[in-house]
This record gives sequence, structure tokens and C-alpha cells, in this order.
Amino acid sequence: MSRLQKQIDFCQEIDQEKGIERKTLTLKGERFENDAEHAWHAALMAILLQEHANEEIDLLKTVTMLLIHDLVEIDAGDTYAYDEKGQENHYEKEYKAAKRIYGLLPEDQRKYLMGLWEEFEAQKTPEARFARTIDNFQPTMLNHASKGEMWKRNQIKLSQVLKRNEPSKRGSQVLWDYSYQNFIEPHLNQELEDDTKKSD
Amino acid sequence: MSRLQKQIDFCQEIDQEKGIERKTLTLKGERFENDAEHAWHAALMAILLQEHANEEIDLLKTVTMLLIHDLVEIDAGDTYAYDEKGQENHYEKEYKAAKRIYGLLPEDQRKYLMGLWEEFEAQKTPEARFARTIDNFQPTMLNHASKGEMWKRNQIKLSQVLKRNEPSKRGSQVLWDYSYQNFIEPHLNQELEDDTKKSD
Ligand SMILES: [Ca+2]
Repeated sequence: MSRLQKQIDFCQEIDQEKGIERKTLTLKGERFENDAEHAWHAALMAILLQEHANEEIDLLKTVTMLLIHDLVEIDAGDTYAYDEKGQENHYEKEYKAAKRIYGLLPEDQRKYLMGLWEEFEAQKTPEARFARTIDNFQPTMLNHASKGEMWKRNQIKLSQVLKRNEPSKRGSQVLWDYSYQNFIEPHLNQELEDDTKKSD
Repeated sequence: MSRLQKQIDFCQEIDQEKGIERKTLTLKGERFENDAEHAWHAALMAILLQEHANEEIDLLKTVTMLLIHDLVEIDAGDTYAYDEKGQENHYEKEYKAAKRIYGLLPEDQRKYLMGLWEEFEAQKTPEARFARTIDNFQPTMLNHASKGEMWKRNQIKLSQVLKRNEPSKRGSQVLWDYSYQNFIEPHLNQELEDDTKKSD
């Protein structure tokens, strides 16, 4: 098969990402967003918010990482951030998916995208850390805008939100502080139970 | 208003792009795709297909152009590529939209995105030409995959498809040739009437 044909096959395969529903409502709270919409929103937000990264980043690499980071969910499905059972065997399922999906590409591109996805998962580079920050910031922004509905509906507690989102500060202290004060704090003890206070 | 707050306001405003429906069916033909999904797909395809551009391109610039090129449709709506009446006053409507939407950003970012959008429209740089190629190639690929349904449903003729898509070759001769042979030709005189043959 020609190099171009492999590339086109991949481009067609990934169309399915538009069908992977997330547990985040769009801004107006009308419906769930899907992975393709999320990836678009996150990639553009990374471009616009790059100045708030803690460290220098290679922006094209960060954007590419965000555009591809959820492709594995075409096979592995979306696991809700607060679904602890769903997290079991999570990495193995996603790794298998990555091998199949990126495997459609010519070898050099397979290696490049597979490497970017592993880099994102490993969280050891400035780009991976900032991409993760944006990947968290975007749904938190939407959860706030849709009035904390998904936190309320799933009885999420502050400790869970912090466990998931606090690592954001490793990519951007500025965005984590903004997110906590503007997107999370207003919902405390309303849509989001504060279970972190020590009892006297 | 702080610089960061302006950026966040913009990031929230653009969520609406997920609600702008296009006249292209997704690969499986189940529903229309929206502008956010299209922009994600196109941006990632530009990254993967860049080697086929006729000229050297700045990839980050091309990707950013594709991520933002349809934001004006939040106010101006999507105009079907083959709706000639809809094309009237099209640029004025979109220009007004661009002014309002990009105007939410801090001045330097407003200028940058407005400039990129105007560059895309003007088609005078290698990045604008390749972005347009991808912007055409992606829906043509989907139209083919969904069995030419939208051409058939709207009684589109080959001359219209050529008028719209032939400029693609200025961005990439390789992708235009592939597109014509693989996505368009198989539908001739089936879902797509060939009105270009001279009568004897
Ligand atoms: Ca359009």
C-alpha cells in the first residue's frame, strides 16, 4: 500500500473520534461534547494560553499532542475521570488501541504519534505537563459554565476534583489558581461537597 | 478586565462552534458534522499530510489557521459550498463576525488571529493555500465515504465540485489528484452528474 494511502486510511479511521462521548456538557449544558470537539477546543486553548505555562514549551508539539491524545478512545472508550473502577486495566486497553490505530500510519509517523502519546501519558516533559493542564482546564471550565451539573449528577466530592486536577499546577500555576478560584470554589458545598475539611 | 480574563472569555465564547452544523455527513453517514469537529479533523490532517504541500509551509501557522478558520460562523452561520445565493454578502457578514469574536481577545492576540483569518481568505501565502486544500479535501473524503449522499441529495453537478475544489491543486497537486481520482471520479454519473462533457 502506498504511503499516501496509509495516511488517508488513518485520516478516515479517526473520524470515529467524533462519536466518542465525554462526560462533559457543552457550555450551554445541552448535550455531551465528544472527543473531537474536546481536542479542537483544547488545542486552540493551548495556543491562546501558552504564555501561562510554567516552562518554555514547543507549541506545535503541544498542539499535536492535544489533537491526538484521545484517539485511543476509538477502541478503548472514554473513561470518566472519576470512575475508579473504569481506571482498572485502563493503560493496557489504551496501549493496545494506540498500537492498532497509530499502526495504520507509515512507520515514521506511527513512531512519532505513538511517542507523543506515550510522552503525554508519562508527564515528564514541559509539553506533556502543559497539555495535561489544558486537558483538565477545558472540562473544568465547561463544568463550571454548565452550573456544576455533572459534579452534582455524579455526586463528585472536592477531594476527587483535587486529586484529578491539582497536578495541573505542574503545567501552569497561573491556570490552576484561576481554575480553582473561578471554576471550582464557587461550587463548594453546593454542587460539589467539600469533604476536605478536618472535623474538630 | 485582566488579560487572562479576556482570554478565558474568548475560550468560552468559541464553545459555540460545536453547535454550527455543516452540510457534510460524518464517515458513517449518521449525522452532520459540526465546525469544531471539522476543524479538529482538518488540523490533524494538515499535520499528517504536510509532506504533500506544493511549497514549504510553516506548520504551526497552518494548523492554527485551520483551528480558527470557521469561528466567524458562530455569528455568520455555515454557508453550504454550493449555495450561490448564500455566498452573497458572505464576506461582509463574516468580517463583522471576525471583528466581534476576535475582539474579545487581548489586542495582540486579536491582531494575530484576525490576520491569520484574513490570510486564509486572501489565499496569497503557501500556508493559506495548503490550509484551503485540506479544508476541501476533508469534506470531499467524507462525501465519498458516505457514498456521495450529499451530492445526490443536493443535485450537485461536477462543474460545481470542480469550481469549488480545483483551486486545491494550488496547495497540493498530489492531494488534488488523489481526491479527484478516489473521491470524485467514482461518483460520476451516479451521485454526481457530469455536466462538463461537450455535446457533439
Ligand atoms: Ca465553512
